[in-house]
Amino acid sequence: MTDNDKTAEALISQQAVDSFNASSSPRYQQIMQSLVKHLHAFVSEVELTEAEWFEGIRFLTDTGHTCDGLVRQEFILLSDTLGVSMLVDAINHRHSNSATETTVFGPFYIDGMPDRSYGENMALTDGMPALVRGRVLDTQGRPLVNAVLDVWQTAENGMYSGQDTEQPFGNLRGRYRTDSDGCFAIRTIVPVCYPIPTDGPVGRMLRAANRHAWRPAHLHFMIDVPGYRKLVTHLFNSDDPYLESDAVFGVKGSLQVTYQDRPAHAADAGGLDMPLPFKSAYYDFVMEAE
Amino acid sequence: MTDNDKTAEALISQQAVDSFNASSSPRYQQIMQSLVKHLHAFVSEVELTEAEWFEGIRFLTDTGHTCDGLVRQEFILLSDTLGVSMLVDAINHRHSNSATETTVFGPFYIDGMPDRSYGENMALTDGMPALVRGRVLDTQGRPLVNAVLDVWQTAENGMYSGQDTEQPFGNLRGRYRTDSDGCFAIRTIVPVCYPIPTDGPVGRMLRAANRHAWRPAHLHFMIDVPGYRKLVTHLFNSDDPYLESDAVFGVKGSLQVTYQDRPAHAADAGGLDMPLPFKSAYYDFVMEAE
Repeated sequence: MTDNDKTAEALISQQAVDSFNASSSPRYQQIMQSLVKHLHAFVSEVELTEAEWFEGIRFLTDTGHTCDGLVRQEFILLSDTLGVSMLVDAINHRHSNSATETTVFGPFYIDGMPDRSYGENMALTDGMPALVRGRVLDTQGRPLVNAVLDVWQTAENGMYSGQDTEQPFGNLRGRYRTDSDGCFAIRTIVPVCYPIPTDGPVGRMLRAANRHAWRPAHLHFMIDVPGYRKLVTHLFNSDDPYLESDAVFGVKGSLQVTYQDRPAHAADAGGLDMPLPFKSAYYDFVMEAE
Repeated sequence: MTDNDKTAEALISQQAVDSFNASSSPRYQQIMQSLVKHLHAFVSEVELTEAEWFEGIRFLTDTGHTCDGLVRQEFILLSDTLGVSMLVDAINHRHSNSATETTVFGPFYIDGMPDRSYGENMALTDGMPALVRGRVLDTQGRPLVNAVLDVWQTAENGMYSGQDTEQPFGNLRGRYRTDSDGCFAIRTIVPVCYPIPTDGPVGRMLRAANRHAWRPAHLHFMIDVPGYRKLVTHLFNSDDPYLESDAVFGVKGSLQVTYQDRPAHAADAGGLDMPLPFKSAYYDFVMEAE
């Protein structure tokens, strides 16, 4: 590479950055100029060939075409598997030492799932019965009444309802609320580990990287209380073999629960009618004021 | 931001980079690790909010959905308008001082267009008649016989056939060949400046950046000669008002031609039957050996 080449290439990058100088908002300008700068730095650093560039265009196009607007969101999956989602999560939840830690939203949330009563069973398919209980608290430990817990998890086959159209509507999904003591109770099945979808471009990427596609077993929560920051997190099964190698980098030590055995004779289901035997887990969520 | 926060965020980025350590090829590993590093650096630098991240996901998804697999390729348009295409072009055509300069491929090429004879008219729609002639040479100035020149341009309405489904098949597109003296002759219309499509995500970006969407008038060439590097370039009209502000940064000084007036009485059409009056341009392309 001659000095002339270097100058010509730097000039292209500078022109592209400068083209955002008159942006409609300072924040838009900042984001786009930083994006262009880093994108060009990447292309220059690896000296991307034209064939590789075209492969990148094809990858992004395929990723877009794999998004169906409903339950398959391949760009979120890509962001997740590149660690970008967890980085965004970390940046946006600094200074929250006393509140529950957050993790990735994931691509499988569906809005408008059924409201569920205290202890209602959201599992319409088979699995080891489980009761997940706990409280929603503020950072002073005071219970938060009527908190909405939007909950979702996969079935035993490792697929979410919606993603797996064979499952009944609303299976393993639902909106629970805390009672007057800030308590919630979710009757479900013990979550299982599962691979993220590998039939699309993200799967191709994982194979080229010799990465596995597994996520450790977890239950998703999005918790909403007026006046508090919305909490998007998971509870991971503490005995999962993939805790150290989550395909989307989502695991945090503070977000693990143990599903404990309840012997066949146990009556301790908090007054709820649970089939015997069942497993039981407990977790208190702590919300940060806005 | 505390030191703890900074450490946690750097750790996520490092984990994401390291996840490509066992890639199937060293080049794949190099590209992906550089991409992840720069992508994370961008997110960290601007401290991307969750809403902005989601807006980015939506933008990429819309961009994918705007690609129709035929003639609309919104990711190429995005790459073009971010200056990435021209950077890739520059990196891949270093050391070519004696050969014709290259420029962006653009999203509107269609493969398999009609073969055209010497001087055949490829304009099936109205415009100022033009004759574009020249030679295809090697870097020693020797004529290259039977070079294939794949040529395409917009109609007077600023749209390419295919993109504009009202235009006849193959309008302003075609594959010409050089004769035994290395000469080519293309009967067409004088190219006009035109805006890139602004009805998709790229249009939204340009509006947010207060950038115009215009490309200076040009004729596309992809020239193929066995044993030589494929040449992808344009010839720009030298009097175009957008030469200094091409929406895709594609203009180079060496790629400009002047369409000269041919008075109504002129018979100089190189033996070709041109309607009078017409305009005429001349350019010699120089191919680099592989």
